[in-house]
Amino acid sequence: MKTTTIARVHNFGAGPAALPLPVLERVQAEMLDFGGTGMSVMELSHRSSAFEGILGSAEADLRTLLGLGPDHAVLFLQGGATLQFAMVPANLRAAGASADYVLTGHWSKAAVKEAARSGRTRVAGSSEAGGFDAVPAPAELDLDQSAAYLHFTSNNTIYGTQWTHEPEPPPGVPLVCDASSDVLSRPLDMSRYGLLYAGAQKNLGPAGVTLVVVRKELLERTPADLPSLLDYRLMAEKGSLYNTPPTFGIYVIGLVLKWLIELGGLPAIAARNEEKAALLYEAIDGSGGFYRGHARPEGRSRMNVTFRLTREELEKELLAEAGKAGLSGLKGHRSVGGLRASIYNAVPTESVRALAGFLAEFQRRRG
Amino acid sequence: MKTTTIARVHNFGAGPAALPLPVLERVQAEMLDFGGTGMSVMELSHRSSAFEGILGSAEADLRTLLGLGPDHAVLFLQGGATLQFAMVPANLRAAGASADYVLTGHWSKAAVKEAARSGRTRVAGSSEAGGFDAVPAPAELDLDQSAAYLHFTSNNTIYGTQWTHEPEPPPGVPLVCDASSDVLSRPLDMSRYGLLYAGAQKNLGPAGVTLVVVRKELLERTPADLPSLLDYRLMAEKGSLYNTPPTFGIYVIGLVLKWLIELGGLPAIAARNEEKAALLYEAIDGSGGFYRGHARPEGRSRMNVTFRLTREELEKELLAEAGKAGLSGLKGHRSVGGLRASIYNAVPTESVRALAGFLAEFQRRRG
Repeated sequence: MKTTTIARVHNFGAGPAALPLPVLERVQAEMLDFGGTGMSVMELSHRSSAFEGILGSAEADLRTLLGLGPDHAVLFLQGGATLQFAMVPANLRAAGASADYVLTGHWSKAAVKEAARSGRTRVAGSSEAGGFDAVPAPAELDLDQSAAYLHFTSNNTIYGTQWTHEPEPPPGVPLVCDASSDVLSRPLDMSRYGLLYAGAQKNLGPAGVTLVVVRKELLERTPADLPSLLDYRLMAEKGSLYNTPPTFGIYVIGLVLKWLIELGGLPAIAARNEEKAALLYEAIDGSGGFYRGHARPEGRSRMNVTFRLTREELEKELLAEAGKAGLSGLKGHRSVGGLRASIYNAVPTESVRALAGFLAEFQRRRG
Repeated sequence: MKTTTIARVHNFGAGPAALPLPVLERVQAEMLDFGGTGMSVMELSHRSSAFEGILGSAEADLRTLLGLGPDHAVLFLQGGATLQFAMVPANLRAAGASADYVLTGHWSKAAVKEAARSGRTRVAGSSEAGGFDAVPAPAELDLDQSAAYLHFTSNNTIYGTQWTHEPEPPPGVPLVCDASSDVLSRPLDMSRYGLLYAGAQKNLGPAGVTLVVVRKELLERTPADLPSLLDYRLMAEKGSLYNTPPTFGIYVIGLVLKWLIELGGLPAIAARNEEKAALLYEAIDGSGGFYRGHARPEGRSRMNVTFRLTREELEKELLAEAGKAGLSGLKGHRSVGGLRASIYNAVPTESVRALAGFLAEFQRRRG
């Protein structure tokens, strides 16, 4: 047989993003025959015992990783975080009630905008005045004691900021988190969360699956007249099998969860993520101003490292040279400009070392 | 290298269902490096030129296969047919207006039930009195001249019936079709359709993608207050890229579309599907009553062949023996019982021949 060398790039894309190579190799090996079924996972009935095993393992492994007890339901849905922007208020905010949102960037603004289409929202804090270069300090939050919930975005991909600790909602107000870009990147105390959601395509698996973890008592809030697929309570009752779920995506997520457990779980991946982020922030901070981080040090993300050079032309040159060197996906979002290295769970430390080395070398030549 | 023999089964599952083997082999070969990008398709940004190529080709090939002109928009959405059950009335039925539904089985009943949650519906015809053993004849339909639309289900997976010709709506009433289980199985005159939708997991690709083809003038009906992801007009404006689409599923669909074009397009696959269905219906009709088809001959589906034996124990024995012979997914839906062979586009003629041979042999031994 012909042996082909596969040239994999270092993928710093913001999402859909890198997946663990062992996971992709497993998917490849099982493509024509999953576990002796004689079928691809894509060809399995969602009512088959083989797929029930896939779904059950994914949920069990997620519960293990997050330390979830029986008070939380785990749902695998569709529509990404964008559909959650509508589902959260549709399910959790009663008619006439108001929901609190903390604005820390593009996606939290999108969340509040969507929620405002169908009812009352309130901004409980914002870091917009500072160009979203950090998240608000606890003292800067102005919380509604009777809010339907308090929503925040745990990591902000575009600005490269991240909450180190969750905001503390008033008693009885559930905390709702869009964790799309840092879910499972570090341990979380899930007893603090009423609902946590995440589009899969950054830290979990392929685009097309949305993870929702919700405290079961909140399911009682779901009104009677929602479209079925927007109804958390129904989805929970049916164990994500009310209709055909995105079976293949759930399978890949399951493999990613097993990979995380084998690595040592959330403490181990958090340590690795800290190490990766430190490599890049040290390169930026040690550059004498050649590289300039967007986020203030106290608000820095471990998932998305955003930085600029002094001149836009130099940024373009860096991007072009990085591409040639196999360092992909480094262009910053158009609303911030500059560069962004997304270093989610699946980005290997050696990719980050390669980037840090490249940044030092680029500065040596052009600094 | 070790060579492993992959034992692929004959997959007669109702969905998620068989995919073309050449498509799976291509997916497998490209898993670690799609087209020289150094990434899996799952790792590509949905804003990358590589994914734009995937999405653009899929849409262009679909337009070629269906002969679509510029009057129709093509959308790749999420949530399956079940979300369409809610999206169709939310977008096309104005407040106070009524929509017509033809009931031909489980899924059309689910469609009207979901539509009734949010507004007025009307049953324009039903074959329920006959146990859904056919679809209504044109003369049996009682159509509302001012309906917001007329909805029908082109193929009924559970009962094994199919429309040979679309129902003819009154002038100005758009025809809406749930084509989840027979889309692209035969040529269609798309000028007759206002909107056609299909969950991917039977004839198109993996679960998690929904195809929607909609006449653009109908997009003007979309009201202003819908959740963004339920808004056809917004999805069309953004070319299915308002948020991150299910990129991998769209890629697989694109490969299935290329496979269909290489086979000779819809006339060629229709001829193959007719041949496959005839093999099974001949086996049933020639069995002297040992096998009994559920659907009346004039209503028979080319996609799902439903039949019973005289005794339930015999059906169980047949299923057990079929499983051992590598014939999978033949159990009928619980609401009809008996057996069902789903023979969608990707089920090879040799699989159907193997089943026909097995049925003859089983009758020889047990008849």
